Amino acid sequence: MELNGVQIEDTFAEAFPIKIARVLITGATKKWALVAAQEATGFGTSVIMCPAEAGIEKVVTGDETPDGRPGAYIQICTFGYKALEEQLLKRLGQCVLTAPTAAMWNGLPKAEKQFDTGFKLKFFGDGFESETNIGGRKAYKIPMMQGDFVAEHNIGAQDAVAGGNFFIMAENQMAALAAAENAVDAIALLDGTITPFPGGIVASGSKVGSINYSKFMKATTNEKFSPSIKAKIKDTLVPADVKAIFEIVINGLSVEDISRSMKAGIHAAVTVPGVKKITAGNYGGTLGPFKFHLKDMI
Amino acid sequence: MELNGVQIEDTFAEAFPIKIARVLITGATKKWALVAAQEATGFGTSVIMCPAEAGIEKVVTGDETPDGRPGAYIQICTFGYKALEEQLLKRLGQCVLTAPTAAMWNGLPKAEKQFDTGFKLKFFGDGFESETNIGGRKAYKIPMMQGDFVAEHNIGAQDAVAGGNFFIMAENQMAALAAAENAVDAIALLDGTITPFPGGIVASGSKVGSINYSKFMKATTNEKFSPSIKAKIKDTLVPADVKAIFEIVINGLSVEDISRSMKAGIHAAVTVPGVKKITAGNYGGTLGPFKFHLKDMI
Amino acid sequence: MELNGVQIEDTFAEAFPIKIARVLITGATKKWALVAAQEATGFGTSVIMCPAEAGIEKVVTGDETPDGRPGAYIQICTFGYKALEEQLLKRLGQCVLTAPTAAMWNGLPKAEKQFDTGFKLKFFGDGFESETNIGGRKAYKIPMMQGDFVAEHNIGAQDAVAGGNFFIMAENQMAALAAAENAVDAIALLDGTITPFPGGIVASGSKVGSINYSKFMKATTNEKFSPSIKAKIKDTLVPADVKAIFEIVINGLSVEDISRSMKAGIHAAVTVPGVKKITAGNYGGTLGPFKFHLKDMI
Amino acid sequence: MELNGVQIEDTFAEAFPIKIARVLITGATKKWALVAAQEATGFGTSVIMCPAEAGIEKVVTGDETPDGRPGAYIQICTFGYKALEEQLLKRLGQCVLTAPTAAMWNGLPKAEKQFDTGFKLKFFGDGFESETNIGGRKAYKIPMMQGDFVAEHNIGAQDAVAGGNFFIMAENQMAALAAAENAVDAIALLDGTITPFPGGIVASGSKVGSINYSKFMKATTNEKFSPSIKAKIKDTLVPADVKAIFEIVINGLSVEDISRSMKAGIHAAVTVPGVKKITAGNYGGTLGPFKFHLKDMI
Repeated sequence: MELNGVQIEDTFAEAFPIKIARVLITGATKKWALVAAQEATGFGTSVIMCPAEAGIEKVVTGDETPDGRPGAYIQICTFGYKALEEQLLKRLGQCVLTAPTAAMWNGLPKAEKQFDTGFKLKFFGDGFESETNIGGRKAYKIPMMQGDFVAEHNIGAQDAVAGGNFFIMAENQMAALAAAENAVDAIALLDGTITPFPGGIVASGSKVGSINYSKFMKATTNEKFSPSIKAKIKDTLVPADVKAIFEIVINGLSVEDISRSMKAGIHAAVTVPGVKKITAGNYGGTLGPFKFHLKDMI
Repeated sequence: MELNGVQIEDTFAEAFPIKIARVLITGATKKWALVAAQEATGFGTSVIMCPAEAGIEKVVTGDETPDGRPGAYIQICTFGYKALEEQLLKRLGQCVLTAPTAAMWNGLPKAEKQFDTGFKLKFFGDGFESETNIGGRKAYKIPMMQGDFVAEHNIGAQDAVAGGNFFIMAENQMAALAAAENAVDAIALLDGTITPFPGGIVASGSKVGSINYSKFMKATTNEKFSPSIKAKIKDTLVPADVKAIFEIVINGLSVEDISRSMKAGIHAAVTVPGVKKITAGNYGGTLGPFKFHLKDMI
Repeated sequence: MELNGVQIEDTFAEAFPIKIARVLITGATKKWALVAAQEATGFGTSVIMCPAEAGIEKVVTGDETPDGRPGAYIQICTFGYKALEEQLLKRLGQCVLTAPTAAMWNGLPKAEKQFDTGFKLKFFGDGFESETNIGGRKAYKIPMMQGDFVAEHNIGAQDAVAGGNFFIMAENQMAALAAAENAVDAIALLDGTITPFPGGIVASGSKVGSINYSKFMKATTNEKFSPSIKAKIKDTLVPADVKAIFEIVINGLSVEDISRSMKAGIHAAVTVPGVKKITAGNYGGTLGPFKFHLKDMI
Repeated sequence: MELNGVQIEDTFAEAFPIKIARVLITGATKKWALVAAQEATGFGTSVIMCPAEAGIEKVVTGDETPDGRPGAYIQICTFGYKALEEQLLKRLGQCVLTAPTAAMWNGLPKAEKQFDTGFKLKFFGDGFESETNIGGRKAYKIPMMQGDFVAEHNIGAQDAVAGGNFFIMAENQMAALAAAENAVDAIALLDGTITPFPGGIVASGSKVGSINYSKFMKATTNEKFSPSIKAKIKDTLVPADVKAIFEIVINGLSVEDISRSMKAGIHAAVTVPGVKKITAGNYGGTLGPFKFHLKDMI
């Protein structure tokens, strides 16, 4: 298969279940909403060693927010609801409540699962806080040095999907990187998904387990996809004309959301000169129940 | 005292000891060095509920880096070295090793305390890694999908200072915020310090303990500095003409570094119209051994 | 009238006819499309002394562009078509043809008025250029040092509207400025309009003519709206609680486009604390045939 | 010659005399200083068809500005002083006086040539303006809607140098572009120089005159350096492994300034993977009196 002259491998991305909480952060301007969103989603690339996977889903205007101010949806992802509630408390309490002009709103008000994170954070007000209702949302006004912080009572969460992905293989590192940046820019405009790695891009796609350090390493470099050692790897999967590969990992609220984002990302990536091939990561179907076939993306 | 027509209170900021590790992250361009630095220092505002305090210290050109590429120094801060080593492993392993084009270097090569974080991360290479020497630094090349990741063997750490601070009091929130932004921009150019809160700014300056929720809250809003309730607080410290206060919190490698940054930040803040007063946070000298007198800043 | 607690004056903005050419600039990534768009629209605030009024209308994804790459629509405005054609040649030839990875496309392919700017620019190819068809658009490939530059044959233009506006009056300069930034961010997402002044904002709203320098000045400061001298101006229009005013000037393809953008901008501005009043600039209906009543914006 | 494994051709860049005016623009924050600087230097890539060449030289902190606010130096370049004065009046009057929070200061106070641009702009104040002295500079306060605009009386200019340059040749377009971006970032930190093209980068390096359209084209594509047609050009200068070339053009106050910036830019460019060769543009010494030998840059 080909798209815009770039080979698309007939394979699939394999993804697995996760829990996602979704928060809408608003600010006095778009800039300040994003400052809070960025701090709250940092140190959040992979649950292997980060306390959560997290990212900014999309920016919205005041037309779509309870307080009429610009905002950004973020997603925070963990394997279980207990860890998720803890992460919400910590990340919203330390990175949104503390952020200039930010307010926090429930990003999944219709979800069955609701955490009373706003209620818990109101105790920072030390008795000076008050209940309020803004845009139909039950919330708290917490007096602080900057003025009031507004926190909605509940933050919703739901079953979701992690690990949607595709690989961008290119002539060299800068071509692969520009294509990855283009893909992330396109995905950033879409509903329901995040790309949790730095700048939305994974430099270090890994395999489960280890050949040489199996006693203590659970995940190691994917040597079959490592261009700098392809001459040494008999069953290398790096094409002859490829010197760099970046992976885009996508988490999202639904299979449909991830499909849409994979499709947009792949279409954006193949427009960049020097891109040679798109493929995806899977474990033969042993890892997760969700399969995203690249043939459906073109 | 006055500076540029703004009242400077004759008080002091009180700071306390912390451990700081310092890492130099380089990238193919300044943008990509900053992408890694930002992810690695996110969710890092306050050790109250974040796993570390962290921030970007300053940007450097290729003249000042082992691999000749542009870079950014980051600082990661915890109360003890054990937690610091764990944070280095997690934050560098998950947010720098994974980041496009990033490399990691020792930011304190002369410090007595050295962690072999680079050595530990090399095992991600699964036996395909190799030792190298770049710019006089012992390092590892770890083959990955993007190409090689380079990690210096050691990352240094030292005794340092946390909690340098000043408060910007202004006519209204946007004046206080522009002044705070200006202060953070000025501090960002200086050696040795970080401003770990979102955008470098604290919206929610707190007091130790609680009046009404003392059984379960260790830190709560500083109601005496809360403009929206000043009419209700008998001993309010909010001046009559002030409606918003932002705090700049500064961690740094030395007392001198923090002094320099406080001075630069205060001078930058008072140029913004609408700023009325600068003061600082202290606990009467009971919290920490370091005092930064505002009279020395003007 | 009030909106979000801010007084809206019952007045109108007065606008006048202009000619607008609209160009779609694409690039390898969103960043590079914007680099070209920014250069091409600079030195373009007011036809009083700039060769054109110009601005970036909106950013679009590859789904909406002939070459599948991300892009930005720009508008270039002059009073007549002759000046407009000259500006197109100069600005596209010097700021888009020269810009890394940029391509130029007709932003008004259905307009009656079409300039063959792409055809004229092809001669830069010195005979090595060739005709092509991309996405149904007749275009030229011009070989250059970076590779080929692609220019569509025609660029369309039409009768349009300039000078839609509103004034943001606030407690102080930083509040007015944050509100103006918020308004410009909101308008930047909408079709059909630009805000040609620096950052989209006018600091220096003027009046036609002059009191004291009428022999040589055609436009001078609007002293009735100047806060710093309001004590000296008998018929000052600066409210007692206002210390700063910014104006947003909007050009656009149609009356409807400008109405939509004024409405969005005003709604965004009034959410910022410290904003006291919104009004608009007119000359009693003597200047232009287009009236935008603020009462229709709320 | 080689630098970091990249071939450096033993050739020289040829530059020619120009006149440069230098202006310091300050703003309430770094962001707003840059907004004004960007507007004032737009549509300013080449004097072939732009009214001036212009660019941002460097950003400075409040320590280095008359009003203690952050700022940016810009340069405006034309062949003669008459055109330069006109450009100063138009660009500062339309793009700085109109810009939120901006002020303008003399960037060459010791130059022999001084234009009274600030004096001329004060008449916008319509008699309400007043003379002032800030940081030892004679200036005017012009009351406007935002508050006062401050303009220094004089703006200095001097004989200077235009057309310093180097070419970055790379495996493909994205590698050449990342190297060019890196070079521009490095040069942006240095005194005395600007890179006037879009994003600092030239996509369309040209030759003087024309082969096929000599009757009406004074400058056309440099077909010997055009990778997409190299198979057709007998005496092509595009190396076999090169598919894209970007040029960095540098104007500056002195030969030394340009030398320093060329050196920094070349060193930054060669760190990017995929870069194959650095060369420079000259006309055999017939165009200008200034020669910059690449062998002196390594």
